[in-house]
Amino acid sequence: MTVKIPRDKEYDYTREAAETRRRFLNEQTNSDANHVGQFSFEPSVLQGNIENFIGVAQVPIGLAGPILINGEYAAGEFFVPLATTEGTLVASYNRGMKLLRESGGVTTTVVDDAMQRAPVFVFKSAREARDFSVWIKENFDEIKIKAETTTSVGKLRDIQQFPASRFLYLRFNFTTGDAAGQNMVTQATQAACVWINEVYPYIERFQLEGSFATDKKTSFVNTLHTRGKKVVAEATIPAEKLKKIMHVSVEQIFEARLASQFGGYLAGVNNNGAHSANGITAMFIACGQDVANVAESSAAAVYAEITNSGDYYFSITLPSLIVATYGGGTGLPTQRECLEIMDCYGAGKAKKFAEIAAATVLCGELSLGTAVIADEWVSSHERLGRNRP
Amino acid sequence: MTVKIPRDKEYDYTREAAETRRRFLNEQTNSDANHVGQFSFEPSVLQGNIENFIGVAQVPIGLAGPILINGEYAAGEFFVPLATTEGTLVASYNRGMKLLRESGGVTTTVVDDAMQRAPVFVFKSAREARDFSVWIKENFDEIKIKAETTTSVGKLRDIQQFPASRFLYLRFNFTTGDAAGQNMVTQATQAACVWINEVYPYIERFQLEGSFATDKKTSFVNTLHTRGKKVVAEATIPAEKLKKIMHVSVEQIFEARLASQFGGYLAGVNNNGAHSANGITAMFIACGQDVANVAESSAAAVYAEITNSGDYYFSITLPSLIVATYGGGTGLPTQRECLEIMDCYGAGKAKKFAEIAAATVLCGELSLGTAVIADEWVSSHERLGRNRP
Amino acid sequence: MTVKIPRDKEYDYTREAAETRRRFLNEQTNSDANHVGQFSFEPSVLQGNIENFIGVAQVPIGLAGPILINGEYAAGEFFVPLATTEGTLVASYNRGMKLLRESGGVTTTVVDDAMQRAPVFVFKSAREARDFSVWIKENFDEIKIKAETTTSVGKLRDIQQFPASRFLYLRFNFTTGDAAGQNMVTQATQAACVWINEVYPYIERFQLEGSFATDKKTSFVNTLHTRGKKVVAEATIPAEKLKKIMHVSVEQIFEARLASQFGGYLAGVNNNGAHSANGITAMFIACGQDVANVAESSAAAVYAEITNSGDYYFSITLPSLIVATYGGGTGLPTQRECLEIMDCYGAGKAKKFAEIAAATVLCGELSLGTAVIADEWVSSHERLGRNRP
Amino acid sequence: MTVKIPRDKEYDYTREAAETRRRFLNEQTNSDANHVGQFSFEPSVLQGNIENFIGVAQVPIGLAGPILINGEYAAGEFFVPLATTEGTLVASYNRGMKLLRESGGVTTTVVDDAMQRAPVFVFKSAREARDFSVWIKENFDEIKIKAETTTSVGKLRDIQQFPASRFLYLRFNFTTGDAAGQNMVTQATQAACVWINEVYPYIERFQLEGSFATDKKTSFVNTLHTRGKKVVAEATIPAEKLKKIMHVSVEQIFEARLASQFGGYLAGVNNNGAHSANGITAMFIACGQDVANVAESSAAAVYAEITNSGDYYFSITLPSLIVATYGGGTGLPTQRECLEIMDCYGAGKAKKFAEIAAATVLCGELSLGTAVIADEWVSSHERLGRNRP
Repeated sequence: MTVKIPRDKEYDYTREAAETRRRFLNEQTNSDANHVGQFSFEPSVLQGNIENFIGVAQVPIGLAGPILINGEYAAGEFFVPLATTEGTLVASYNRGMKLLRESGGVTTTVVDDAMQRAPVFVFKSAREARDFSVWIKENFDEIKIKAETTTSVGKLRDIQQFPASRFLYLRFNFTTGDAAGQNMVTQATQAACVWINEVYPYIERFQLEGSFATDKKTSFVNTLHTRGKKVVAEATIPAEKLKKIMHVSVEQIFEARLASQFGGYLAGVNNNGAHSANGITAMFIACGQDVANVAESSAAAVYAEITNSGDYYFSITLPSLIVATYGGGTGLPTQRECLEIMDCYGAGKAKKFAEIAAATVLCGELSLGTAVIADEWVSSHERLGRNRP
Repeated sequence: MTVKIPRDKEYDYTREAAETRRRFLNEQTNSDANHVGQFSFEPSVLQGNIENFIGVAQVPIGLAGPILINGEYAAGEFFVPLATTEGTLVASYNRGMKLLRESGGVTTTVVDDAMQRAPVFVFKSAREARDFSVWIKENFDEIKIKAETTTSVGKLRDIQQFPASRFLYLRFNFTTGDAAGQNMVTQATQAACVWINEVYPYIERFQLEGSFATDKKTSFVNTLHTRGKKVVAEATIPAEKLKKIMHVSVEQIFEARLASQFGGYLAGVNNNGAHSANGITAMFIACGQDVANVAESSAAAVYAEITNSGDYYFSITLPSLIVATYGGGTGLPTQRECLEIMDCYGAGKAKKFAEIAAATVLCGELSLGTAVIADEWVSSHERLGRNRP
Repeated sequence: MTVKIPRDKEYDYTREAAETRRRFLNEQTNSDANHVGQFSFEPSVLQGNIENFIGVAQVPIGLAGPILINGEYAAGEFFVPLATTEGTLVASYNRGMKLLRESGGVTTTVVDDAMQRAPVFVFKSAREARDFSVWIKENFDEIKIKAETTTSVGKLRDIQQFPASRFLYLRFNFTTGDAAGQNMVTQATQAACVWINEVYPYIERFQLEGSFATDKKTSFVNTLHTRGKKVVAEATIPAEKLKKIMHVSVEQIFEARLASQFGGYLAGVNNNGAHSANGITAMFIACGQDVANVAESSAAAVYAEITNSGDYYFSITLPSLIVATYGGGTGLPTQRECLEIMDCYGAGKAKKFAEIAAATVLCGELSLGTAVIADEWVSSHERLGRNRP
Repeated sequence: MTVKIPRDKEYDYTREAAETRRRFLNEQTNSDANHVGQFSFEPSVLQGNIENFIGVAQVPIGLAGPILINGEYAAGEFFVPLATTEGTLVASYNRGMKLLRESGGVTTTVVDDAMQRAPVFVFKSAREARDFSVWIKENFDEIKIKAETTTSVGKLRDIQQFPASRFLYLRFNFTTGDAAGQNMVTQATQAACVWINEVYPYIERFQLEGSFATDKKTSFVNTLHTRGKKVVAEATIPAEKLKKIMHVSVEQIFEARLASQFGGYLAGVNNNGAHSANGITAMFIACGQDVANVAESSAAAVYAEITNSGDYYFSITLPSLIVATYGGGTGLPTQRECLEIMDCYGAGKAKKFAEIAAATVLCGELSLGTAVIADEWVSSHERLGRNRP
């Protein structure tokens, strides 16, 4: 018969319960979890964050910065904690931050903000679904009231409609304050749907999620319509800074950009930049974010051009950056400390954190982008030096 | 003038250097990093994994399992460490593991295995690029030799060609043993490209990456052609188990599946399942993987059907699961311990780890999928109980 | 020096001018255009439809039907003219129409209707673009007035916003009566943009089209948000009809459907059905539609399931079906006749035509879908007959 | 009871049979098909091209050209027949051809050539499917022999494999000479599959098409791997020609290009150009192509840049251009004449036709692209003339 992982029904969030499970593991698998078992806080703080707690992953954090940001919420210089095990990642972002500091900083703008739950309602035929779509529009105010009964923070902004076959897919867009808000919008949408299901007579059935949210997935609907924050980070890098610090010319980097963004278009990428996932993931692990949201938060759209003055305008738009400065893992000991390094813990800080994340990503894009080219340039140089035909 | 993060040129991977940086942070930002500063190992182990080390993120680990797997590399029962701060995640995967245990386990198959670097070569016109494509085919053996001079592990399997405009985008596919292999294939491809660039006369320039890799991005090319391991996890769940443990019928879950996969198709998702990113991310953080690869590793393709006997066949294909059991962060203290819980540390274990990850993902899909429906069913039930017309 | 195609400045839309050009062609290319030169109408009717007229393509038309439709605009039986040179196409659609006639007909519903022009406005940075987005919302009524000055038919329904980098991409959605309306919305949007450009001070420049329309292209934005009509055609086929007429069982067709829609999802299709382009193109050529719109009109989303009673529910959603019954080529001699066969020429008929097109497409899907399976079934049968292990 | 369209079992491809059907139509629908009934050839030529023939669509043809092409198959000046009812289309392509003539012509290169049928084989589990994938590779030579028994023209080039779940999707790539080849490859693949199904023991079932072909659909797999011809058309337009003929500067057109290709990337287009579907469709109707293939043939990838000398390099890659100069509708009276205008009828001409089509498309892209900008520039100019702040 299958053994069961030990749980203590009363006192499960304790050092003892964790140790009991580690001993059980040791017996079952003949492996040790000594380092895992060393953590600096009381397990009682973990209620609501983990089940069957056995200890911690100690993920090394490196410090990058300062990064200079001209944001609406983040203004000035910031140090950014990056949790990763990938060598050179911190150094690379740091190098990009230096370039941007000397270039006047990164301008950041939060251009949209919405968290979704996307129920689908099923009807006898498309015609009943179409009629329902009119009803949804006409009864928005009432639906909003029902949804917001479950939350003091979440506000139902609008409901998008996507009819197909005998279904009406809806996308409930909420603002969720400084929480990421996935649970908040689930409960609110559930409340609204239960009410709709009661009062509208022709519904065959509904599902609380019809895959239009699209939670923990990248998708065109999210890229087009935001999930979490949509943030733009942009900067104009003077040609001489690019040359001095990165050893590449504006023409070289732009030429490489054109070739790689054409490749990305052909390859069907959800991100025509270089490696935004690296910076985002490292910040997410350090700062107690829901790291699985890297699936959607790593989507990106780079736009770059040479300015009339011969400098390099570079921007990155993150269409679905999901961040929180409150709730979830943000209050855990090391996670909160990391948020506090950037003064990003607690109420009123989510957009600030989103701006710092986007600015950090931009620094990393320019750092990797130029490194690749500088190498290539060197090899071209060698080749030319060999006097080839 | 901008302050600089302190570094010790000689002894930077020490407790003292880390503490110096934390003190610096405290001065600069008026924040503390007390918990961050508490770790259980010597920083000297971190060389090659991090720069500007200040301490660690302590990410709670919960234990799920045992999961029963009928794999070619992973056979039997395993306990799975999941590092996350999202409440209910561990419980949900655990619940799915129970269902699958009682249903005879998860069958796993690694169906493809390749890591890429994708250089682009630029020519005067499409015609020269087309001629070059012939040359690449004819000279594959020599190119393979040049590439493999840089590695004893990596093997160049084949080179895919994607011509467009005056470019030839190439995709070098390598097997990389038990390392994820991104750096390995970069060096090998670089060596091959430098040689190609020397001997083939008509190249205008080349870039080591033309966005066809597509590293840390999700893309159609990766979904079609694998990045890392392509793994299938599948199982047939007896109808009575689904009813007993998950409280849903096969018809209910399949009906919901059809509606949600239709929604996902319309929404343009890279994953027509529920939340594979959750399980993958939690295993990646615990086990020292490159967590930013969640961007591509979270892609998934679910296929489900009702069998002739009325049971539920469910499968998930992970087309680009990037895992390592050697190198990168796998050897760090807590990370190695987590791999060892599953006997997945070191040489010869990467496919085993891939199978466990895919099997875990499948359990999570069925757990969330049925929970959503059971709720809906309850609410439908209430509604019916109210005797509505 | 290059020769020039002859044109008559005054009388160019005449039989003589056409003949002059055919003679010129004969001299230049040593080819004849005898059949091309035989047409049954006065070229004067072609003003606004063609330049450098030399004659006509005689595209054979086959007749399919009657098709039985339960539409809101098309109700009853219709004969459908299909212009094609692909053998079996007409026969195949005809066969599907028979199945659907015996199954009670096709239900059709127009669920959305909009034609777009999508200008992009360029700003100094994302922040100015974001502020402009607020202004656009606040000034919608005025923008609508300006846009509608250019047309008595087109109505500006709403303006969707897609901010990215320092751009604001807008999607002006119009209803356009019975015209396809591309030119109508272009002029209306142009008028609105010129006014916006005059009154809003911070615009760097604008382009009348920023690729969000997406005219003559398939795209996710069109699939999600309609271009032209979004039409659903659906039917429930009794199991015995499927067996009697198509020689397949519901289980066989559904099993094949699951496998092919999974393949389509993986392949990244814009159409998870079989061949909607065939029927749409043949109707478009016959009926004077803008046939190049097949690029977007051929997008489709099939949803099918087995009903509780064991019959086959099948639906196809055409998200971007662009049709006209007025303007463009609809008034030309053969084209008008073909529209009149279905009583679809002129004012008030566009949605009727859209319904007939969608219903026709559905018949073709079921015809091809079942033919493929019946063949396969035969070959399986042979195999089994050979008594293989 | 439903009336039936009259057919003559013996003599159905006659003027009389067509007239009988038109009279029937007149009785049933009270509409006339007088113009439809006027055609210049004997219906006997239509066997294999149409069923239930009633007459023809007379689609007006305009002449554009000459276009100057530097192709490998098409070299020199050509006149291009375009069948359309969309006013300005011919004029616009003509204008582009003038620009390109004065700029030295369009360079065209066929870079790939393959037509597909994509069967899917179903197995008990992914493991059997994976083993089968090895068998397919090992038995390629035999499979090729079986496939080619059905055709003297078609050659099986290679078989791509796409494993997922318990399926193995295969993509049989053939060269098909001067026919489009869809039927040819269907029969050849069917023959191969029947044989495979007989000799390989573990197949549950197979379908001749698993949606990886992707016939009459646009898809990422086709964009990546060609369907029909993959053709590149490219040219460098001197800055002064652009200014003189099109009234725009290189900087203006490139700036507009960057904004619109960014928009297209965000919108999820299958074509980041302007309107390739227009030229392709008009050529396809005139020249007896399978016009429904516009669905896939309209996919395109534009790449443009400013050269070191300040001129404009512009290219368009058509990844899935399906053309025939033999078979299908190519031999019908007006269709053959149109092919002969370009000396493109019959054996050995398919690549020539593909080059002319791609070159024509390029001319249309530059014509529309510059027209849009010139307008915008005028309006900007007006605005500046009004002395705005």
